Amino acid sequence: MNYTFSDKIVSLKPSAIREILKMASDPSIIPFTAGNPSSEAIPAEVIRKFSAEILEQEPMAALQYSITEGYPKLREALKGFCRERYQAFDGERDDLIITSGAQQAIELACKVLCNEGDVVLCENPSFVGSLNSFRSYGVTLKGVAGDEDGVDMAALEEAMKTYHPKFFYVIPNFQNPSGRTMSWQRRQEAYALAKRYGVLILEDNPYGDLRFAGEPVPTIKSLDEEGLVIYCGSFSKILAPGLRVGFVSAPAPIIAKMTVGKQGSDVHTNILAQMIAYRFLTEVDLPRHFAGLAEIYRHKCELILSEMDRQFDKRVAYTRPQGGLFVWCTFPEGTDMTGFCRAAIPQGVAVVPGTAFVANEATDVSYSFRMNYSTPSDEQIVKGIAILARLMRDYLK
Amino acid sequence: MNYTFSDKIVSLKPSAIREILKMASDPSIIPFTAGNPSSEAIPAEVIRKFSAEILEQEPMAALQYSITEGYPKLREALKGFCRERYQAFDGERDDLIITSGAQQAIELACKVLCNEGDVVLCENPSFVGSLNSFRSYGVTLKGVAGDEDGVDMAALEEAMKTYHPKFFYVIPNFQNPSGRTMSWQRRQEAYALAKRYGVLILEDNPYGDLRFAGEPVPTIKSLDEEGLVIYCGSFSKILAPGLRVGFVSAPAPIIAKMTVGKQGSDVHTNILAQMIAYRFLTEVDLPRHFAGLAEIYRHKCELILSEMDRQFDKRVAYTRPQGGLFVWCTFPEGTDMTGFCRAAIPQGVAVVPGTAFVANEATDVSYSFRMNYSTPSDEQIVKGIAILARLMRDYLK
Repeated sequence: MNYTFSDKIVSLKPSAIREILKMASDPSIIPFTAGNPSSEAIPAEVIRKFSAEILEQEPMAALQYSITEGYPKLREALKGFCRERYQAFDGERDDLIITSGAQQAIELACKVLCNEGDVVLCENPSFVGSLNSFRSYGVTLKGVAGDEDGVDMAALEEAMKTYHPKFFYVIPNFQNPSGRTMSWQRRQEAYALAKRYGVLILEDNPYGDLRFAGEPVPTIKSLDEEGLVIYCGSFSKILAPGLRVGFVSAPAPIIAKMTVGKQGSDVHTNILAQMIAYRFLTEVDLPRHFAGLAEIYRHKCELILSEMDRQFDKRVAYTRPQGGLFVWCTFPEGTDMTGFCRAAIPQGVAVVPGTAFVANEATDVSYSFRMNYSTPSDEQIVKGIAILARLMRDYLK
Repeated sequence: MNYTFSDKIVSLKPSAIREILKMASDPSIIPFTAGNPSSEAIPAEVIRKFSAEILEQEPMAALQYSITEGYPKLREALKGFCRERYQAFDGERDDLIITSGAQQAIELACKVLCNEGDVVLCENPSFVGSLNSFRSYGVTLKGVAGDEDGVDMAALEEAMKTYHPKFFYVIPNFQNPSGRTMSWQRRQEAYALAKRYGVLILEDNPYGDLRFAGEPVPTIKSLDEEGLVIYCGSFSKILAPGLRVGFVSAPAPIIAKMTVGKQGSDVHTNILAQMIAYRFLTEVDLPRHFAGLAEIYRHKCELILSEMDRQFDKRVAYTRPQGGLFVWCTFPEGTDMTGFCRAAIPQGVAVVPGTAFVANEATDVSYSFRMNYSTPSDEQIVKGIAILARLMRDYLK
């Protein structure tokens, strides 16, 4: 039997990147490719305790079917969390839904807003998981380039004027893959543009609580007077990704449609995980927990940057993140970046080629690669950077 | 701000059914509306034990990111389970993916196979959750009517010839909502038609292990020589629905595309739940567990049927299921079925109007309603049937 698949799924072709990531799954390879939180950042003991208590005290609440919007107590707690920590929930206008990880939040935004052929704007580069989710809905992605402070405002305005996009997808804090943080100035300007051109903003903030340097910048959602911002958060980086719990704060009509969409996707999110997230949010000393996370990631990031400073060729540029999980390295134009990434594997090191993160794989060129510092051990970081530093000599002419 | 939603989500209109279901959520109402397994059928103690052991012995495996295809040990165990219990896995040709409930399996089938405007065939009536999932992908649903033995074969052939559908969606065992089981003869004929017309079959078997009467009928998948059948199963009715763990056994190229689709939907299914399902499958005495479930549902079903036999007007027809959760009641043509369902609420009883389950809400008429017997207590069943029996006198002329 020859199967005919949908156009949208066929457009998601396996690429050279997948090939590299597949080779990188070998446990002997130093995994700068990961997007995982550091295992020492996952409070396993706390989760074990909460899980045992829940299954002891209210097993049927945790095991029967539940409602699509999410565990009511968690929804209420998250409304408060969003409002107080991020000014990202307006009690008069917004509502909140629990999703199966922020990935589902991203997908639901696309499902409820986009017809096939609609345009979605994104930072270029941006998170490949989200880009593929958009692609799987048959939308056209248009990337907007940027610099250390976030996307370029003239380019963003031009794109909004030209393409009439449904929304602009942005990760303002410690972006994946670039590690960059959008400045407060740019956030205000981006919001003003969204308002002027009637474009929604999909603000994805999975790393916001992982800041270890610099000053917090308010969310774009905090500026949202007109109901233009769909704000997504996640427990994957502050609690545990295996639980698959994320959430969306957005104007109530959008959440209502997302609820209809989610009903057809998975009925509801694993309810035990939602109940664990609720206890985490209300019973754990969060400022202390977040301070602990900052310690872990600060150390890892400082280590990788100091090794890179010491060993990398000076022609290689890289970002200096104030939080999150990633450093973004860029070769001079014309370098065979993909060749470099491929050659690193037999040397025992894996990084993700920048082409994984471009909006348009057919036309966008990348000389960058992404490095994760949360997953490899300290020893692996030191050893891996030395290997990459040696290898890059062959690729820099 | 006025939001413009996607055509596919706008087409999922809230209807009179939702209004009735909303009213039915009042805990004082006798819930014949539910689709939940009986709470006494959920082995909470076993789940508590497995969960504690997993979080004690291998917390990071349960809490870190995992792979999209699913927990490898669970996938292997399920391949064996499908093969041995249902002849529903061909080791040479098929592969298997873990999904976030069977609902996601249904959605993924549509995502990978259907373009907007493609036709999907379904039994008429069929499970509203699946129908809405199909609708959310912009497909055209065509319903095929049937009788006690399943869909009508002439009608199925006519529909395959006329519409060139992508697949035929069918729940052969104890169908939702009708409670009917498709005969072995019809399963063979349906497979032969699928083969003749090159149509895939999406076989949904969430209730297969809940048989309490009659003889097991082999799955359609067991006939699958040509790689035409996508088989979905679930832990929702045999373990716990709150865990959200389902699976698909299908030809490897289909599973490969589903994996790409799932990556963009939720990355992977909650991994602790998958590990619990694995232990359940390999450490629990399944024949004994299934026998226990049969006891629970046999008792409930016999009780509701005997009360209906005793009290319902003889002009009301209803099915006599051999398993599963539902009885399907049908008024004589012309009865105001929706009025009856609505009037039951202030009397303290809720049932689901048959219009919820039709393929085309605009054209298909229903005089039926669905009753669940697994959720109400014995007392509620006796009391609720008496109320309905009294009320229906007003609606039968």
